[in-house]
Amino acid sequence: MRNIRMKVAYDGTGYYGFQAQPGGNTVQDAIEQAIETLTETRTRIIGSGRTDARVHALGQVFNFHTESRIAIERWGLALNARLPHDIRIVGRAEEVPLDFHSRFSAKRKTYRYSICTSQYHDVFRRNYELHHPAPVLDRHAMRIALEQLVGEHDFTSFTTNHYDERSHVRTIYSAELREEGHRLDIFVTGNGFLYNMVRIIAGTLIRVGQGKIPADSITSLLEARDRVKVGPTAVPYGLTLIDVDYSENTD
Amino acid sequence: MRNIRMKVAYDGTGYYGFQAQPGGNTVQDAIEQAIETLTETRTRIIGSGRTDARVHALGQVFNFHTESRIAIERWGLALNARLPHDIRIVGRAEEVPLDFHSRFSAKRKTYRYSICTSQYHDVFRRNYELHHPAPVLDRHAMRIALEQLVGEHDFTSFTTNHYDERSHVRTIYSAELREEGHRLDIFVTGNGFLYNMVRIIAGTLIRVGQGKIPADSITSLLEARDRVKVGPTAVPYGLTLIDVDYSENTD
Repeated sequence: MRNIRMKVAYDGTGYYGFQAQPGGNTVQDAIEQAIETLTETRTRIIGSGRTDARVHALGQVFNFHTESRIAIERWGLALNARLPHDIRIVGRAEEVPLDFHSRFSAKRKTYRYSICTSQYHDVFRRNYELHHPAPVLDRHAMRIALEQLVGEHDFTSFTTNHYDERSHVRTIYSAELREEGHRLDIFVTGNGFLYNMVRIIAGTLIRVGQGKIPADSITSLLEARDRVKVGPTAVPYGLTLIDVDYSENTD
Repeated sequence: MRNIRMKVAYDGTGYYGFQAQPGGNTVQDAIEQAIETLTETRTRIIGSGRTDARVHALGQVFNFHTESRIAIERWGLALNARLPHDIRIVGRAEEVPLDFHSRFSAKRKTYRYSICTSQYHDVFRRNYELHHPAPVLDRHAMRIALEQLVGEHDFTSFTTNHYDERSHVRTIYSAELREEGHRLDIFVTGNGFLYNMVRIIAGTLIRVGQGKIPADSITSLLEARDRVKVGPTAVPYGLTLIDVDYSENTD
């Protein structure tokens, strides 16, 4: 028995999210089907976390246990040959200790939320970024707001009560706004994220950029532990899971 | 009666090309439908040229004659509100002389052909670039080949005998290869292009990059006027019509 870890990129546009569900047509279903075609054994994979319908990934991570003797360096090519074109195994497959678990072993995750501020949306990126043309967003205010999210906080204000979490406390290691041409990217790295957390952060930042929520109010909005006081949940397709990190080093 | 000119960007993935055809589902059909919804009059548009199925545009140009009194600055927003999300009117609509014709008045067109050279294709750009992972392409050889295309030539070797052209002579004003990360972009600007010309140039350049066609043989391949001696027609989805220029200045 081996435990194999892989990294996968996907365009989530055509899927009902990452995690397998009765209705099918999820990224996990597609990957498990590819593994079954390859190994002739039904195999369950464990993802680092779910992503919602239309949410994307550049570096989602999953692992699975297998009796297959396929050489570790062959897995990527073999699965890619069997996967649809909107899902790609990237980087090298790795054999990991049997107790490695993509979700429980994850130390840090990085998400990106992309906003297009040009007058017309970009037809080639229409499924990958929120289009917000008017009026101009105040980047300085947005950066002041982002800084207040860094650190250990109770993020009850920034989640949807979708399913039970033992705790709403999470640590954000970094939160930054990058600008290139008409594109604004919000990058957030943390030890974990609550349901809809990055999308609510994005929706709140847009309100801050519009001057509808004061830039310096984020700390008090966190303390209020009240979802209704922050911004709306931004559309799913602007969100991309960039990376999942398993190293102990938190620098 | 007014003659109105517009610029349009489209993701050609879901269309059978630009030009209207009996089967429908073309970009022209979609634009004419939007104009009809807006003006309640069936209106024929004239594109600067056809683009094939799955070929894209950042700056296709079309014009149409209309009795509508809608103000010129309102056309873009009004049509965008009625167009599917993979087609966007960009820039400003312009009123042009009644005899302006998007195809016959065009002075220069610029196309881009994009190639992705990374080991795995980019899931977010899979419909917009040719994936050519192995082996490494010789950029220097490709540039030497491109230079020989510049100037006035008979491009019979670089076209598919699809429909009758009065002449196969065209002038290429510039042809260059740009590289950014794992992406190679071939930009070609000319006074006109034969059917499949840019895709055959791209297919030939890849052969040159692979060392299968000598870099200095392009001039003799042009002189041979023989389609079978050059490279294959590269896949349509790597091709994008970047711009159509109507100014007299050829600098």
